[in-house]
Amino acid sequence: MAANGTTAPRRTASEYSELQASRLGFSLPLPEVLRNSFQVVDGPPSSAAGNPGLRPNLLPVKCGSVVDPRDVHGLQSARSMHFVTAVRSSLHLISGGEPLWTTISSACTGVTSADVSNQSLKIGVVLSGGQAPGGHNVISGLFDYLQERTKGSTLYGFKGGPAGIMNCKYVELTTDFVYPYRNQFKQAEETAKKLDLDGLVVIGGDDSNTNACLLAENFRGKSMKTKVIGCPKTIDGDLKSKEVPISFGFDTACKIYAEMIGNVMIDARSTGKYYHFVRLMGRAASHITLECSLQTHPNITIIGEEVQQLIAELNEILAHDVVDEGGVWKKKLGDQSRQLFELLPQAIQEQLLLERDPHGNVQVAKIETEKMLIEMVEAELGSRQKQGLYKNVFKGQSHFFGYEGRCGLPSNFDSNYCYALGYAAGALLQSGKTGLISSVGNLSNPVEKWTVGGTPLTSLMDVERRHGKFKPVIKKAMVELQGAPFKKFASVREEWALKNQYFSPGPLQYVGPTSNVTNHTLVLELGAQA
Amino acid sequence: MAANGTTAPRRTASEYSELQASRLGFSLPLPEVLRNSFQVVDGPPSSAAGNPGLRPNLLPVKCGSVVDPRDVHGLQSARSMHFVTAVRSSLHLISGGEPLWTTISSACTGVTSADVSNQSLKIGVVLSGGQAPGGHNVISGLFDYLQERTKGSTLYGFKGGPAGIMNCKYVELTTDFVYPYRNQFKQAEETAKKLDLDGLVVIGGDDSNTNACLLAENFRGKSMKTKVIGCPKTIDGDLKSKEVPISFGFDTACKIYAEMIGNVMIDARSTGKYYHFVRLMGRAASHITLECSLQTHPNITIIGEEVQQLIAELNEILAHDVVDEGGVWKKKLGDQSRQLFELLPQAIQEQLLLERDPHGNVQVAKIETEKMLIEMVEAELGSRQKQGLYKNVFKGQSHFFGYEGRCGLPSNFDSNYCYALGYAAGALLQSGKTGLISSVGNLSNPVEKWTVGGTPLTSLMDVERRHGKFKPVIKKAMVELQGAPFKKFASVREEWALKNQYFSPGPLQYVGPTSNVTNHTLVLELGAQA
Repeated sequence: MAANGTTAPRRTASEYSELQASRLGFSLPLPEVLRNSFQVVDGPPSSAAGNPGLRPNLLPVKCGSVVDPRDVHGLQSARSMHFVTAVRSSLHLISGGEPLWTTISSACTGVTSADVSNQSLKIGVVLSGGQAPGGHNVISGLFDYLQERTKGSTLYGFKGGPAGIMNCKYVELTTDFVYPYRNQFKQAEETAKKLDLDGLVVIGGDDSNTNACLLAENFRGKSMKTKVIGCPKTIDGDLKSKEVPISFGFDTACKIYAEMIGNVMIDARSTGKYYHFVRLMGRAASHITLECSLQTHPNITIIGEEVQQLIAELNEILAHDVVDEGGVWKKKLGDQSRQLFELLPQAIQEQLLLERDPHGNVQVAKIETEKMLIEMVEAELGSRQKQGLYKNVFKGQSHFFGYEGRCGLPSNFDSNYCYALGYAAGALLQSGKTGLISSVGNLSNPVEKWTVGGTPLTSLMDVERRHGKFKPVIKKAMVELQGAPFKKFASVREEWALKNQYFSPGPLQYVGPTSNVTNHTLVLELGAQA
Repeated sequence: MAANGTTAPRRTASEYSELQASRLGFSLPLPEVLRNSFQVVDGPPSSAAGNPGLRPNLLPVKCGSVVDPRDVHGLQSARSMHFVTAVRSSLHLISGGEPLWTTISSACTGVTSADVSNQSLKIGVVLSGGQAPGGHNVISGLFDYLQERTKGSTLYGFKGGPAGIMNCKYVELTTDFVYPYRNQFKQAEETAKKLDLDGLVVIGGDDSNTNACLLAENFRGKSMKTKVIGCPKTIDGDLKSKEVPISFGFDTACKIYAEMIGNVMIDARSTGKYYHFVRLMGRAASHITLECSLQTHPNITIIGEEVQQLIAELNEILAHDVVDEGGVWKKKLGDQSRQLFELLPQAIQEQLLLERDPHGNVQVAKIETEKMLIEMVEAELGSRQKQGLYKNVFKGQSHFFGYEGRCGLPSNFDSNYCYALGYAAGALLQSGKTGLISSVGNLSNPVEKWTVGGTPLTSLMDVERRHGKFKPVIKKAMVELQGAPFKKFASVREEWALKNQYFSPGPLQYVGPTSNVTNHTLVLELGAQA
């Protein structure tokens, strides 16, 4: 262990709960394609394809592929990577469906395959941004890949997130060190050089993977050998594309929140004493709320994507203007947004003007919308009461479910998905790839049939207003109002509003009939693509 | 169904989650003693034995036993009841340990046994007070007892709690009606007469069982045939005695809260960003907090029983005096309590003076102690910062875990325990018993070996100050500072305070290695008694 590396105090086995211990002993499955010999096959060239308006000068990144002397055109040559089994195993034929090779090669343009070398590597890995259940499974997968396929390799874990790369704070990840985390989860340059890193794995959300992309380009521009691979992490579920069907942590967090909501629904049904108003953790995208709604059937669900114009305008104003007490600044709001703003209780107006997060976004999670709604309903019913139109008693009870979902023990799905993501990251690095995000697909099938590859981070990118300026960033996947999950919700919400069709999923299970159910969002989205 | 009975809208099977459906199909075990033929054996006479200072005129109840013409002395003749298998089965010898008969008969004074008649009965049942997971399992047990052992019996469920008895609002509980609840859950007199009730089962906490006791005595005083049996329900765990080792719902609620706390601990350990302050639902007794602490090992746990003098004095003052704005009323506080009160932030002072609950108690759950503590720590560290004694950044994050624990799907333990309580209640009523609380013991052994009987409600009673007056009530079982659970906690809390020995139990499981673990409190208390 290097001098600057520290030995973190280790937990002993007696400090694990029985369930944690049983999860630790559980051996995770791998997609068939990663189990034996495999080849890495390049896909078609990609660009920030979904965003034809993207101005090249805003996106100074040219990576997203193998370092290749022919690759002088930047974006145009960014390619997806797929792993294919080197030998067609009869297993594929026996288990029914199309042989895996066929499935995958049909998605490949060329047959240019890169051999996977067997030399030892030095790899760094960093957990970037807020937590999500499964992060340590990614690291376990990466670690096992290096152990099993690249003898003598070294894996460094950077401490305290990306700051650890800047400050060169790290630990060497050994078998003993990794054990407890199984089944769960110009300074940067110097660190990479100092540690002689062959690769760096960034496990994070949209902003973290944007940084991974920029870092990959930076290293590449300086002809450094360090490759950068991202892994899609965020409970918000807003980092996804066709090739990255889901970010990890979303499945677990939604199941924990849905349990809590289901319990509160049983309370509501059984006492009839309160109207419960639940707010869930999350940023601008409402995937968590939509998923929990599909899992529990509340009377009313508010999907932010339907009403986000006001917040967009506020972001713009706060980046450039002073919010004067006299309220002159409000003239900068559009008519509809100003009317909406004036409607809100004062406490909520103040919360909307709160400090922005480091990316210049409203900290939506800090707005106590659940309390706002109770106040607004109370005010409305009070006025109806005076007119003799309402005679009952309204009692609101507010809830915020946040941190307790972000750090849960990962579900079976997240455990398996993360392990495959990490193992694949190891293979991508060993193949000399950079600027890719580890991507695991075919998720509606059993783990063995999952496909594995890498997608250029640039293909996920877009320009966005941040702090009032255009910046190249990974495009946040918002709830699509024309997407399958929202349409499903829209088709039933009126019935849920009028009839109490509450649905209580109960606690997340690891064994038994419900243990391998995945979330509605993924199932519906994959179904729509099929 | 009688005219006043209503047909509640039924849920269809499609509205159950997969986990709920799998729990519905799960057949609950019964203690061996309830499986075949059994006799009901009287125990020794009891009184409010633990409370020798109890003044007889404060407790005008004479029930707690079979209606017996010899029983003219009230309390003195209240007897516990035990069920014993009518035939000594060789099973007891095979399974090791003492035969059940011996175990039980050693606890009985006499051998006066009452035959269990086989006539059909009319029984009412009411869920009284706040919810607790398992209430419907009690009803399922009671229902199955009547179905299997008293052909042609009728079971009425009163709606909306005790008010349903007053207003004669009920539903007849049929096989179809009970199905969805399996595995989970002077007007009174008129109702009992109108429905020609043989018995009434009150499923509730300390106050509800106090009412059950008074109702039993009232019915008995008027020579009505309606018998009353209580079942111990409260997530607070504050209704217990040697013969009633635990109230149902406690096990499930603590497991749900401990999961949440464990998750927040993982957040704390992994980001190091916040100091988390968690408040749990509950009233004066701190069993839930103590149990969750034993399950999760937080750095600091506040057990209210150590600091409750102030609240007791405030209750007394609020019952008799006006709280003047000038603060003259504070002179009525003792020195220590006044100093403590003056120390508290103003918001907390106001919360302490809030409206009392229907029993005249401070609504402790409405005091946001988690926010109070954050404010106090901020103030203290701010002052140290000015003196140059503290240089770090303190960020507190508050949590309240409440309703989501009260209405969870019951744990295996609560499911089995409740089913036995309900089945036993059926047997007690069929035997003509009244004023008893259904009691299931020997809980550290497998379900088959559990003992079953009834304990006089009077034996749990005490006089308490309520609304500033002495009233006969069931004694709230507070955390005993000399009891085994608190002693265990006290022996390790210093170590937990200094070292982060967080323990994350994970979600409640129904299958697998952790599914049949009971709570620490019960295990430690039974261990201390053994």
